[in-house]
Amino acid sequence: MVRKNKKISCAILIIGNEILSGRTKDQNVSYLASWLNNSLGIKIEEVRIVPDIEKKIIDSVLHLSKNYKYVLTTGGIGPTHDDITSKSISRAFKKKYCYNKEAFNILKKYYGKKFDDPRKKMAKMPEGSKLIYNPSSAAPGFIIKNVICLPGVPSILKSMVDSLRKFLKPGIKTYSLTISAKTIESKIAKKLENIQKKYKKFVEIGSYPFFRLGKIGVSIVMRSSNKNSLQSCHKDIIKMIKNKKIKIFKGA
Amino acid sequence: MVRKNKKISCAILIIGNEILSGRTKDQNVSYLASWLNNSLGIKIEEVRIVPDIEKKIIDSVLHLSKNYKYVLTTGGIGPTHDDITSKSISRAFKKKYCYNKEAFNILKKYYGKKFDDPRKKMAKMPEGSKLIYNPSSAAPGFIIKNVICLPGVPSILKSMVDSLRKFLKPGIKTYSLTISAKTIESKIAKKLENIQKKYKKFVEIGSYPFFRLGKIGVSIVMRSSNKNSLQSCHKDIIKMIKNKKIKIFKGA
Repeated sequence: MVRKNKKISCAILIIGNEILSGRTKDQNVSYLASWLNNSLGIKIEEVRIVPDIEKKIIDSVLHLSKNYKYVLTTGGIGPTHDDITSKSISRAFKKKYCYNKEAFNILKKYYGKKFDDPRKKMAKMPEGSKLIYNPSSAAPGFIIKNVICLPGVPSILKSMVDSLRKFLKPGIKTYSLTISAKTIESKIAKKLENIQKKYKKFVEIGSYPFFRLGKIGVSIVMRSSNKNSLQSCHKDIIKMIKNKKIKIFKGA
Repeated sequence: MVRKNKKISCAILIIGNEILSGRTKDQNVSYLASWLNNSLGIKIEEVRIVPDIEKKIIDSVLHLSKNYKYVLTTGGIGPTHDDITSKSISRAFKKKYCYNKEAFNILKKYYGKKFDDPRKKMAKMPEGSKLIYNPSSAAPGFIIKNVICLPGVPSILKSMVDSLRKFLKPGIKTYSLTISAKTIESKIAKKLENIQKKYKKFVEIGSYPFFRLGKIGVSIVMRSSNKNSLQSCHKDIIKMIKNKKIKIFKGA
């Protein structure tokens, strides 16, 4: 029997002044989007980046948690004064902000005699949270309601995502195909729009101009949860491009 | 006479399925954040990334435009079917979506006989918009109310930002200093919190652990619009770190 999964929507909330100031480039959105789609068929439908300000975090968490099946937050769960994610989310959901016994014990074992107050802070979270284990630096993430809190450091975040499998309900995987052609968008826009109309229920077609390595071109990206529609749409676009005698770049 | 500028807040709205799917990594937020701060003293306070869906664009534009002095959008102003920013923003502000005469003439001159329908689409925008000139590929961005629409391709966006100077009111520039030290966050968290308390009105201190080139450390970033407070805070943190006999990395 083929199990029919539903579409599962998800939002990401990035918490951190360093992203908004331009000092740090976010690397987590593209990683999480690919991982969630490939591993669980979950689609990111919105991303917000907010500063380390409690009210902004609370407002965003409440809004996103109401409107999406899952919300993933990144950043702000470390030991310093500017790490206010756990406290803010406790307040958002009117939960006690307190030590999680299991997290406390994990960190106590990891740090031994060096388990000081700032490190103890990393065991504080909304009451009733479930832990997301951290194989690289011990301090766990947590899940409360439909909100999943992960750290901001990309290498640590990557080491933790595999544990999410047991918490998140899988959805339908989106497949994609890309055609990169030596052309400009306006040359194919009309025909591409017609093809999009033909497949409007099943395939999402995106058109992205590029200028790289001395090449000018357009990448046409098709995305669908239906492999047959995707293949058929791909065939139509290839045909359209060949009819216009446009060169297709290999390996794109 | 020293002119006292006020704080000017700004939000960025990134429009594009390709960013949410993880296919394309956004490069514009960090560029715009640095440029706006250095050139105009404008601070990014929120970023949202939404898909190419009219309702999502309208809701976000209306919310952000109400809550921030300026909103910059990136993406969705090209010639293809998935470029729906101009139309969506026209609807958001209940403005007619029509040809801008000046934009039409710029594009007509640029494309000559090859000025076809998809290219004409790039001259359509909310009635009453002012143009932001595009020295790299002619198709202009536009400003309507407090919303500034720019393209998504980073190289084109970069070529256009200088024209924003005449439209945006300058604010107070934020200066920053960074100290990178061979330590872990928990070792300095308590003292750093005290220093943050001392400077709470004037300096924002962020603490960011890093693991790069075989080095483990923490970057402490101080940000302020007041140079004296910033220098004084920097001195206090250096002193605190030296007292703890922690090594400071050069050139960080």
